[in-house]
Amino acid sequence: MSYQLLSTTFYRLAQLGHANAMLSWDQQVMMPPKANKARGRAMAELSVLSAEILQAPNLADVFAAAADSQHLLADWQRANLREMRLEWQRACAIPKDLVAAEAMATNECEHAWRQMRRDNNWHDFEPLLQNVFDLAKEKAQALRVALQDERGYSNDYDALLDIFDPGTRMRRIDPVFAELKAELPDLLQQITDRQNSQPALIRQTQPVAKAKQIELARELMTVLGFDFAAGRLDEAGHPFSGGVSEDSRLTTRYDENNVIEGLMGIIHETGHARYEAGLPEAWRHQPVGGSMGMGVHESQSLFFEMQLGRSKAFIDAIASKAQQHLGPDPAFGADNMHRLYTHVEPGLIRVNADEVTYPLHVILRYELERDLILGTARVKDIPARWNQAMQGYLGLKTEGNYRDGPMQDIHWSDGAIGYFPSYTLGAMNAAQLHAALLNDIPQAPSLIAALDLEPIFAWLSNKVWQKGRSLGPDELMIQATGEALNSAHFLAHIRGRYL
Amino acid sequence: MSYQLLSTTFYRLAQLGHANAMLSWDQQVMMPPKANKARGRAMAELSVLSAEILQAPNLADVFAAAADSQHLLADWQRANLREMRLEWQRACAIPKDLVAAEAMATNECEHAWRQMRRDNNWHDFEPLLQNVFDLAKEKAQALRVALQDERGYSNDYDALLDIFDPGTRMRRIDPVFAELKAELPDLLQQITDRQNSQPALIRQTQPVAKAKQIELARELMTVLGFDFAAGRLDEAGHPFSGGVSEDSRLTTRYDENNVIEGLMGIIHETGHARYEAGLPEAWRHQPVGGSMGMGVHESQSLFFEMQLGRSKAFIDAIASKAQQHLGPDPAFGADNMHRLYTHVEPGLIRVNADEVTYPLHVILRYELERDLILGTARVKDIPARWNQAMQGYLGLKTEGNYRDGPMQDIHWSDGAIGYFPSYTLGAMNAAQLHAALLNDIPQAPSLIAALDLEPIFAWLSNKVWQKGRSLGPDELMIQATGEALNSAHFLAHIRGRYL
Repeated sequence: MSYQLLSTTFYRLAQLGHANAMLSWDQQVMMPPKANKARGRAMAELSVLSAEILQAPNLADVFAAAADSQHLLADWQRANLREMRLEWQRACAIPKDLVAAEAMATNECEHAWRQMRRDNNWHDFEPLLQNVFDLAKEKAQALRVALQDERGYSNDYDALLDIFDPGTRMRRIDPVFAELKAELPDLLQQITDRQNSQPALIRQTQPVAKAKQIELARELMTVLGFDFAAGRLDEAGHPFSGGVSEDSRLTTRYDENNVIEGLMGIIHETGHARYEAGLPEAWRHQPVGGSMGMGVHESQSLFFEMQLGRSKAFIDAIASKAQQHLGPDPAFGADNMHRLYTHVEPGLIRVNADEVTYPLHVILRYELERDLILGTARVKDIPARWNQAMQGYLGLKTEGNYRDGPMQDIHWSDGAIGYFPSYTLGAMNAAQLHAALLNDIPQAPSLIAALDLEPIFAWLSNKVWQKGRSLGPDELMIQATGEALNSAHFLAHIRGRYL
Repeated sequence: MSYQLLSTTFYRLAQLGHANAMLSWDQQVMMPPKANKARGRAMAELSVLSAEILQAPNLADVFAAAADSQHLLADWQRANLREMRLEWQRACAIPKDLVAAEAMATNECEHAWRQMRRDNNWHDFEPLLQNVFDLAKEKAQALRVALQDERGYSNDYDALLDIFDPGTRMRRIDPVFAELKAELPDLLQQITDRQNSQPALIRQTQPVAKAKQIELARELMTVLGFDFAAGRLDEAGHPFSGGVSEDSRLTTRYDENNVIEGLMGIIHETGHARYEAGLPEAWRHQPVGGSMGMGVHESQSLFFEMQLGRSKAFIDAIASKAQQHLGPDPAFGADNMHRLYTHVEPGLIRVNADEVTYPLHVILRYELERDLILGTARVKDIPARWNQAMQGYLGLKTEGNYRDGPMQDIHWSDGAIGYFPSYTLGAMNAAQLHAALLNDIPQAPSLIAALDLEPIFAWLSNKVWQKGRSLGPDELMIQATGEALNSAHFLAHIRGRYL
């Protein structure tokens, strides 16, 4: 009965989560500007309420009783108990004062960042970021003390990684990132040399009306299995995938002069959405039925975008649809479009990076934030280390250019320290899953060419979506691909596509 | 400190109310169809959570302590304590089993109603409605037992009226409705005789594209003081005004061949929205800062629609805007448009009724539901009594026509018994407030002609919006107009406009 009581409590938390997901979507997509303060109050109160539910004093006894009788539970319920316990322990580990201080510090830092980035003003930004890192360190320590035995943390940074990508540890990241660092700079040189010897790319010449872009986007989303009776596509300042499993809310932005970029963003977000919608219905509203950490989530969006969406077979297959909706611009010819979608060029900005340089942006951030949390670097060292790493990895200088250097991302201002590695873990997971798919379904390329994608989605559903959070990321990859996460498939993918 | 604790509790309930308002708007305006079940679950859980907060066992002691020290409170806080107490007492008065049974019965009845109304199937509908009325009676009794001394109920029906329009009692309604019943049928005859002797109305001849209608709607809403930086206008199956004070969410539907009707609906909903947005900011998120009951709420929408919107001065003032957006259709000439907006014609359907016949539709429903709750009528008598009253009041038969007779409204299926009188109380309040406005601001008609409406809104704000729920409906009307609610101003308004 104690398990049942916990299950009811987490059902309630899931419903508050539904409300929060929709309020957040509305805030970014629909809400008029003057409503922001009231919305902030409502969302804050829902958070406090959820925290209070999770911190109710009687839960300790209930968890103890549930643990005592867990031999009576089904496997998935035991996994659910483990996930419930982790959420509860985390909520109890961090003192209320620290939660409030962190909320204040990140709110202040993020707010200031919006203006100071524009002004290239590192000087005034630095103490605010220092404060955020100080509190993150304090939080990491609190979490480590509470959870290190059970969760096997080796250091404070592990406790932060574990928030965004449960199961990920420094000892799992370091070797694979080391492999990428060893290979990518040289690969990058070979790829750019090769691309530079090819004829010039054809860029879009004519603007394309938004309505036409929406038509094409909706058609491609349908090809990718998105169900418009259980989701929407809307416009927002930045593209994201929100909502709940039963109600996927995707957003994009439309640029009449750069259709190509927005379209791939939509394919990326569709991957996130299909993962959420494909989670096991029988476990819905329970932690074990939720999505895995960001490393797996990003693997699904990147599977859709990088493995599927930017493949020659897929682009060949959709080129006629693109021309039909967007017009006969030579930029949208199949070959040229594929070249646009696989153009590699080192740049300062992570979010604009291609899939070859992207991991180097991530590794730079990982090494910095890790050292900051472990105490071997200081916030005031960030600009110098950023410049040094950018020169080393991509041959670009950022000295004095804070705006396009260490101030380009919102993550740290927001307190999301430990998040960045997920992007590259996701890219590696996606490549490894794709290799396993080709093993299991050798005719996958011809299915893609025919846009007969259902068997591929069924494979993903079986290997990833339907697992919910019942496995850790290592177990998931071993069960799905026969091996633990490694860099070999990603590097082979890069070589195969670009050389 | 006990008052402070209550205030914090009701702040939390208000934030849950914000979430509920937005989820409900989204459900009706944005949500894809397959998401309905998940949304229902989330909204139900928020309701249960709110009920639990209100039924917490410790609140009895807190309310007792707050009552003991209420001499320390400011006037508005004492009024707030009164309103908090009423909400709490109501939540505690109804047994949980009854709440659940009512939710189930109304859900079943409303669901069945949608199909059975189409099928004109009273036979299968009757037992479902019987169940709803039986449970409503039980609820009314429970509320009367708990609250009659404090709230001065004379009977069970008073307890239901008090839910929708706090402060309204049968003894307040009966005399004013009797006056209307005595005057309206004869007035109606005179008005229709007069209108029949006039030249034929010109109906809209050309369809008007939705985009054009939206332009005009937005311009009129702006004239009426709606702030699009703090609200939205969207499309929905039925027009409503939702959202929260800081974020007004209006909806309408567009009929290309009947622009006139939708436009007045928008003016009506704008009245509701301005009232909500104009509630006192200092008392926000507390019960005393909320809107009054439906009789006052409807007075604001009907002030906008009937007193302002359908006045000759207003229609003359907006006719050129209408023609500019909608085109030069002769239907949109100022004189003809005013005649369309003041055309009187008895009909079977309440929601299509003009302001002269509308009260008779309401009185019919009031007399029926009152007698059903008081036990002097039975559900199976409804069709015969409906037919008899329609013949007596409007000279129309509904025998065998359930669809356009007693099955036309959703209210009873939904358990909203005690709601109908608000519509006509609102119309009378609106007329009485308008008469007081003319007393206080004699130049109001020329302000309307110049669309210089700010002084009129300031008057409404001062007399109604800024009062929140600090007064009862009688006190509000006496303070605003110098007299208690009566039918004289409404009847004078009808005579003045139509004869």
